[in-house]
Amino acid sequence: MTAAAAATGVAVGVDVGGTKLAAGLVASDGSVLDRVRHVTPQSADGIVDLIVEIVEHFARAHGLTDVPVGVGAAGLISLAGEVRFAPNIAWADFPLGAILRERLARPVAVDNDANVAAWGEYRCGAGRDAHHSMVMLTIGTGVGGGLVLQDQLVRGAGGMAGELGHLAVLEGGPPCPCGALGCLEALASGTAIARFARDAQAGGRLRAGSALAAVPAEELTGKAVTVAAHAGDAEAVEILATAGRWLGVGIASLIAAFDPEVVVLGGGAMQAGHLLMAPAVATAGERLLGRGHRELAPIVAATLADDAGLVGAALMALEPPAR
Amino acid sequence: MTAAAAATGVAVGVDVGGTKLAAGLVASDGSVLDRVRHVTPQSADGIVDLIVEIVEHFARAHGLTDVPVGVGAAGLISLAGEVRFAPNIAWADFPLGAILRERLARPVAVDNDANVAAWGEYRCGAGRDAHHSMVMLTIGTGVGGGLVLQDQLVRGAGGMAGELGHLAVLEGGPPCPCGALGCLEALASGTAIARFARDAQAGGRLRAGSALAAVPAEELTGKAVTVAAHAGDAEAVEILATAGRWLGVGIASLIAAFDPEVVVLGGGAMQAGHLLMAPAVATAGERLLGRGHRELAPIVAATLADDAGLVGAALMALEPPAR
Repeated sequence: MTAAAAATGVAVGVDVGGTKLAAGLVASDGSVLDRVRHVTPQSADGIVDLIVEIVEHFARAHGLTDVPVGVGAAGLISLAGEVRFAPNIAWADFPLGAILRERLARPVAVDNDANVAAWGEYRCGAGRDAHHSMVMLTIGTGVGGGLVLQDQLVRGAGGMAGELGHLAVLEGGPPCPCGALGCLEALASGTAIARFARDAQAGGRLRAGSALAAVPAEELTGKAVTVAAHAGDAEAVEILATAGRWLGVGIASLIAAFDPEVVVLGGGAMQAGHLLMAPAVATAGERLLGRGHRELAPIVAATLADDAGLVGAALMALEPPAR
Repeated sequence: MTAAAAATGVAVGVDVGGTKLAAGLVASDGSVLDRVRHVTPQSADGIVDLIVEIVEHFARAHGLTDVPVGVGAAGLISLAGEVRFAPNIAWADFPLGAILRERLARPVAVDNDANVAAWGEYRCGAGRDAHHSMVMLTIGTGVGGGLVLQDQLVRGAGGMAGELGHLAVLEGGPPCPCGALGCLEALASGTAIARFARDAQAGGRLRAGSALAAVPAEELTGKAVTVAAHAGDAEAVEILATAGRWLGVGIASLIAAFDPEVVVLGGGAMQAGHLLMAPAVATAGERLLGRGHRELAPIVAATLADDAGLVGAALMALEPPAR
């Protein structure tokens, strides 16, 4: 980071999702001073061009030079900032970090979207009172994860740490998009919630009177189930509880392995609120507290909502984490 | 650590197991300069007295004053060195660290046996070429674990990190001594290997000609299965392969979460060698490499054998790890 950027204490954070690209000018306390939102371009080059344009826009609008840039993007991302693979974006084996560093002529931090969101929540969100460690699960279409230890994001030997959606919780269970069976993502994501509902509908197992019976299968999404559950539909409540219990199994494994100060749950599926969290907390407790010799770490909801990614990416650029 | 002890560069390491208590005078390069071995005393006070006696013996015999002391003990152990619970030793909620510090009038490092073994392997054994991270599984009667990240042993918020035997790999599966169902320990420990063999024998499912058919059920231990497998018994080989595949499921989860430089496998069950490791490596690879975008971390056997615990405990005393 240059002296000028350090002096300003602001950075640009970019969150590249499968459908939208959100960016903000973020202060070191996590406050978002300015923001833009675009549809994610269809090509890798288009995404790079848009990021460069956004950075130049913020720099011009706020009279900044050499403002640091952090980018979070869905997918497997190497330590060097290469996108190895992303399920919903048109790039693979794409050296995003190197290209942005050249185009912008400055250091650019690039990491997985769930990692940057975890960093944002740790520094300025639900984990801000933690002193050294946090586990975050981002429950959306898939399940992403981020780990903080010793006040640093855990990146792993190749930058692939924190793929917590691929913990095996039911070996031999339902297929995950990653190719394995019974991953947490296959049982506790928005996609899994939708599958539970569709399977029950197709199998004629929806309980009598459930509003889900009238929803066309292709509209039976995690969101539709959540809306029905909040309206009191018992079937929808039970489907969320099933996903929540699986989430609790994964959380128990993470607490057993990592003993974090706090577990933070974020992502779109958290619209379900306590309908997902209460069964998760109960199941994690049942698995861990059998012998009564451990405490259950607090399991809390993320607080930065959609801003977690861009805030975390910006903070990562301001203060690059160690490996 | 006092200047005198730092100058000598040696420490006493003690490994308190359920049946034996091993201790050594260990140099900072991990070499064991002197050693003793005792039957573990039946009472907590007896264990404390024996540790004090051993430390005084080494100090006298080698002309050392204030030599640092590290202790690894089976069970759940808090950051302060309190033994919360140990399945096979006569202590619970016992402030081992505080008592030893008072009796020995010096700093005493106390941690879980699997954690100190992991630290020993990381610093001087199979993980010695790693620079920042390692996962170790100790496969014996149970399955213990230790995590090294950022060049430090992960101890966790309460000292309970690394309980890797209690990863859920098959929720709803066989009961684990911890009270939960389908933990890694319930499927890939020496106890699980014995159970697989006994269940097959009791159910008449042992294949024709297996030597295991003639072994009395109470002698059908993990060790007996391993001996038969090394002698070529196809049934015994398949039982080890089953446990090995479950081990691979757990390893895949750990690689997904932590992306370590190396995975180290130790403990008595590793007498099975490649009969356990080859299926573990194959299964971990199948789970992780489905999409072809990650590399599989090397999965290797521990090299310090029975010394890992006392070496790791001594090294921890010489250079106390951060949380």
